[in-house]
Amino acid sequence: MEAASVFLQLAAILIGARLGGEVAARLGAPSVIGELAAGIVLGPSVLGWLEINDMIQLLAEIGIIMLLFEVGLETDLGRLARAGRKSVVVAVGGFAIPFVLGYATSRYAFGQEPIVALFIGGTLTATSIGVTVRVLRDVGRQNSAEGQIVLGAAVLDDILGVLLLAFLFHFSSTGELDLGGTAQLLVLIVAFFLLAPVAAKFVAYVMGHYRQLAQLPGLVATMIVSLIFLSAWVAHAVGAPELLGGFTAGIALSRRFVLPLGVALRRDARFSREVEQDMKPIVQLFTPIFFVAVGLSLDLTAVDWLSPFIWTFSIGFAFIAITAKIAAGYLLWREHWLMRTAIGMAMVPRGEVGLIFAELGRAAGLFDDSLYAGIVLVIAYTTLLSPFWIKLFYRLYGERRELVTPAA
Amino acid sequence: MEAASVFLQLAAILIGARLGGEVAARLGAPSVIGELAAGIVLGPSVLGWLEINDMIQLLAEIGIIMLLFEVGLETDLGRLARAGRKSVVVAVGGFAIPFVLGYATSRYAFGQEPIVALFIGGTLTATSIGVTVRVLRDVGRQNSAEGQIVLGAAVLDDILGVLLLAFLFHFSSTGELDLGGTAQLLVLIVAFFLLAPVAAKFVAYVMGHYRQLAQLPGLVATMIVSLIFLSAWVAHAVGAPELLGGFTAGIALSRRFVLPLGVALRRDARFSREVEQDMKPIVQLFTPIFFVAVGLSLDLTAVDWLSPFIWTFSIGFAFIAITAKIAAGYLLWREHWLMRTAIGMAMVPRGEVGLIFAELGRAAGLFDDSLYAGIVLVIAYTTLLSPFWIKLFYRLYGERRELVTPAA
Repeated sequence: MEAASVFLQLAAILIGARLGGEVAARLGAPSVIGELAAGIVLGPSVLGWLEINDMIQLLAEIGIIMLLFEVGLETDLGRLARAGRKSVVVAVGGFAIPFVLGYATSRYAFGQEPIVALFIGGTLTATSIGVTVRVLRDVGRQNSAEGQIVLGAAVLDDILGVLLLAFLFHFSSTGELDLGGTAQLLVLIVAFFLLAPVAAKFVAYVMGHYRQLAQLPGLVATMIVSLIFLSAWVAHAVGAPELLGGFTAGIALSRRFVLPLGVALRRDARFSREVEQDMKPIVQLFTPIFFVAVGLSLDLTAVDWLSPFIWTFSIGFAFIAITAKIAAGYLLWREHWLMRTAIGMAMVPRGEVGLIFAELGRAAGLFDDSLYAGIVLVIAYTTLLSPFWIKLFYRLYGERRELVTPAA
Repeated sequence: MEAASVFLQLAAILIGARLGGEVAARLGAPSVIGELAAGIVLGPSVLGWLEINDMIQLLAEIGIIMLLFEVGLETDLGRLARAGRKSVVVAVGGFAIPFVLGYATSRYAFGQEPIVALFIGGTLTATSIGVTVRVLRDVGRQNSAEGQIVLGAAVLDDILGVLLLAFLFHFSSTGELDLGGTAQLLVLIVAFFLLAPVAAKFVAYVMGHYRQLAQLPGLVATMIVSLIFLSAWVAHAVGAPELLGGFTAGIALSRRFVLPLGVALRRDARFSREVEQDMKPIVQLFTPIFFVAVGLSLDLTAVDWLSPFIWTFSIGFAFIAITAKIAAGYLLWREHWLMRTAIGMAMVPRGEVGLIFAELGRAAGLFDDSLYAGIVLVIAYTTLLSPFWIKLFYRLYGERRELVTPAA
């Protein structure tokens, strides 16, 4: 493809994201909805001006990695760790409940084959870490107590999703249960999470000192981006989602990151400020491409709107998809119900993670066209509607004492 | 290609550029040489770790467009216009002299076909606007009097090169001289140059005012980049090189840009500062990719170093390539000889523009392997050696009164 046509596509994506985001914000909706809607309008669903291609896909992946980098940068690892037990409860519940309900309903109410039912259940386990984080940021709750629990749970959900995908993929192609391979993958991912931030912190520390010796400008922009790319590549190499590489690089560069075992490296506040300031425009440039690309990849013309199956299937499973995640929030039985609801609602959007599951199911020949369309609709409902409820919820209850947490 | 492998390649490119640039700067060489060398080392010439692919190519093109945007942003259009007559002399001389000498030498000393000789002459007309601008910046002469003349001449040379390429391409495929088509292309490019900055200025003006109304962060990063992409796309659509789209967008956003006919829009200094600050990391991120990509595309293993032809051809044409451009500087007969030499030397690097000519000649079946290798060597000599002379020249004569111009 010619570079010039990619430039035109990128300009359309960035301008569309801006217009959509601003209109959504004006209307009181979360701006991420505007960006997703811009993708739906520009893409095959409505105007058909743009299609996902390799270039847009790559830049979109850079966008989500950069967003997760920024989320990591703003994350207080101590608070995330303190939220840890609760995050585990929400992640495991938010994984198991939709999986079991999705499997049972597909198998017994819709009479699907066991392997197809397993993939449908798998699709429902997803949590869109990108949409979830963006909505929390749009409503100003990223660093709240529930925000930390949701962030941890979304990260864990992504890992559980990858493990399940690897497991199901092996099962669907060989018919064997590959517990050993899945366990090995889990060990690698855990090792990545333990080692990557330490390694990245070491690199950042060297960079921060070397900075005074650098003769050329642009050290932060080029070297921090390299560190993020390397971390994403290592994440991919061990079998983890690439965006978690961005997250761990961000964690490592966070001002609040301290090495374990009390080995605190001297913090260089000026370097941290430079990183934040120089990375901001880069993150802002790439991130909207991701959300527009999610909209572009939702092809709503593939849906046969007149078939009764589509309606029963998509509404039935959307009901399961939503209630199962909210139920996961309610597993935190010691929390106030507002807190439990807020956490559960934030986990609802399936977004790009659900689309990856659905796409793999289709590629494996398990989902036919109508099944795929139904699943895409479920993903669209959860992704497009839950930001509205979340915003509405915080407008109604956001000032309640049970939700207002002390500043970090 | 998998996204993860692109991430690894990009990290290698950015880290290689940084290491090469820093080492070059330490050794007193221009840092651009280090970045080009990093590409040669990483690419097929030495290690063979990386190859140019569509993704790297696209990001490299974004890099050169961004660099030209920044050059435009720092350009004083008034000074550029005052340098204009001299730029025209240097551009036309620097185009005609190497073309005629290159054609005559290929035709009569090396006995090439007329159309082949025309392409060889065409390759020698090129000026690498990227390398030229970078070297002037590395030696701190970007905004000097000679810097402005060279910038103008390099831009004009790029346009003349495009016109010649279109003309030769038509001639080589149909055997007809397409003067009408070339004239039409010229008119379109001139119209682009007159209208694009005004249109871009208008958009920037609207954006600057709208900025206060924007609800979402990241306006500058996303909308200025969109403006640059749109401008590059329009440049391509009218037949001009895409990088000139970046240049005109930069000109339009320059603090010193005033509309013609005295219609000066109120300048918004705060907006200008925001543009400069937010675009800096984006430019710094993409630009090194371009210079490394130029190095990657120089495949020096294609050269048969034992053939006498390669040596006579490449050294002979390198001599022509260098003296012809310096002769063009000497056409400014009223200037001091130091000024004339500085200008001529800055025009020597052929870089990516020469490679495009050579690649088209090969694709059209006009250059066989040994001819192509010889031309690539000529391009490599002019691109890799002239930054050294330029730096040495300014070390020797840079403080001389004839070269020190009043600050802008």
